[in-house]
Amino acid sequence: MGKVIVKAFSLSLDGYGAGPHQTLKEPMGVGSEDLHTWMRTTKMFHQMTGKDGGTEGPDNDIATNSMSNLGAWIMGRNMFGPIRGPWPDNDWKGWWGPEPPYHCPVFVLTHHAREPLEMKGGTIFYFITDGIESALEKAKKAAKDKDIRIGGGVSTVRQYLQAGLIDEMQLTISPVLLGSGENLFAGLDLLALGFNEVEKINGEKAMHVVLKKNSGLFVLRRRKLQSLRMNDRMPPSLL
Amino acid sequence: MGKVIVKAFSLSLDGYGAGPHQTLKEPMGVGSEDLHTWMRTTKMFHQMTGKDGGTEGPDNDIATNSMSNLGAWIMGRNMFGPIRGPWPDNDWKGWWGPEPPYHCPVFVLTHHAREPLEMKGGTIFYFITDGIESALEKAKKAAKDKDIRIGGGVSTVRQYLQAGLIDEMQLTISPVLLGSGENLFAGLDLLALGFNEVEKINGEKAMHVVLKKNSGLFVLRRRKLQSLRMNDRMPPSLL
Repeated sequence: MGKVIVKAFSLSLDGYGAGPHQTLKEPMGVGSEDLHTWMRTTKMFHQMTGKDGGTEGPDNDIATNSMSNLGAWIMGRNMFGPIRGPWPDNDWKGWWGPEPPYHCPVFVLTHHAREPLEMKGGTIFYFITDGIESALEKAKKAAKDKDIRIGGGVSTVRQYLQAGLIDEMQLTISPVLLGSGENLFAGLDLLALGFNEVEKINGEKAMHVVLKKNSGLFVLRRRKLQSLRMNDRMPPSLL
Repeated sequence: MGKVIVKAFSLSLDGYGAGPHQTLKEPMGVGSEDLHTWMRTTKMFHQMTGKDGGTEGPDNDIATNSMSNLGAWIMGRNMFGPIRGPWPDNDWKGWWGPEPPYHCPVFVLTHHAREPLEMKGGTIFYFITDGIESALEKAKKAAKDKDIRIGGGVSTVRQYLQAGLIDEMQLTISPVLLGSGENLFAGLDLLALGFNEVEKINGEKAMHVVLKKNSGLFVLRRRKLQSLRMNDRMPPSLL
């Protein structure tokens, strides 16, 4: 059985996954391109966009891993395109040209029904109008034993988080400030939602972390740290 | 003229500089010890607490740098001690024993007057009751051409940030989640406050960043990125 995961989801230091003032030209808001500088320079991204070159190393490993073992995607409608409200026609086919990089079923959350859209290379966009649980159920059937990636944007990830439906998140903290926009964590208690283990991978241009649910290890770790702290007369306020 | 700085200020991935449920035994709240794991293992921290050993490397460099060229400190009263309300007596002399690691004047923000407190090694605690600007003015006089470090906690840093009085911040993002507590950035727009340049230093156990105010460079960078993006048909939503 595959996992429900978030991968290569980039946040600013101040917690934003998208900037303010989203427009057709800047669909993720002002400043958001800085969030993904780490990815644009990788060999994986160069390959995906039909270019030569690009860096190898931890950033590239994370980028490559983010596309591996995926059996289905779920994304919000704003990640699929800039159109709001009812579909005027069937002309919009995503940002990615005739052959999107997904190569599997992609379930697009929307309030407006539309026929499935089959693209080159195995990507089929399905438009789901009956909610996030329904989309996940369909994605699980489609993905079989592969993972289901919750692609984004921020609002879609938050909805799945709040519903307790995400197993694991690989987030990337980019060394940029956005100041405002869509905050991933605001009002959410990630510990209460069960994420209690963090793995860190230093990238060349960003810090990558993997958040897992593993309450057993967590309790042990917490107890150990508590007993260490009681024995160690360190000055807590200076720290 | 020295700078007004924040240094080695540790945040969780979800933006908290202190955890929930602050008590005498856990003055920075539950889970907060994990914020400073990166520092406790360094040679600098070992030396400061009278121990042998400790790691060298980027984390140690950051820890060492955080204590260098300081002419004065400013801290909130809760960083000085656990007592709330009026001082019952003059017995509480900080968490740090007879010789605190500051070795310079330390201005403690409080609503309750108290005589200055001289400690071994050059630390003198002054209790300032007439506001953050007054404390900064006194600290500047005391520091001469050295830097003034705004020590913490979160609330104190936020007050100085909102007043536009901080020149530079070296923050450390620790790969931990606190879930709740005191959030450094909530409701603050760091870009609007003038922080527009970010330097990243990979640590062994955390990511260190230096936030600077440098609007000229920022505007150039933003323009350049915008023109790059217009020329480059990258798929914005996949990123």
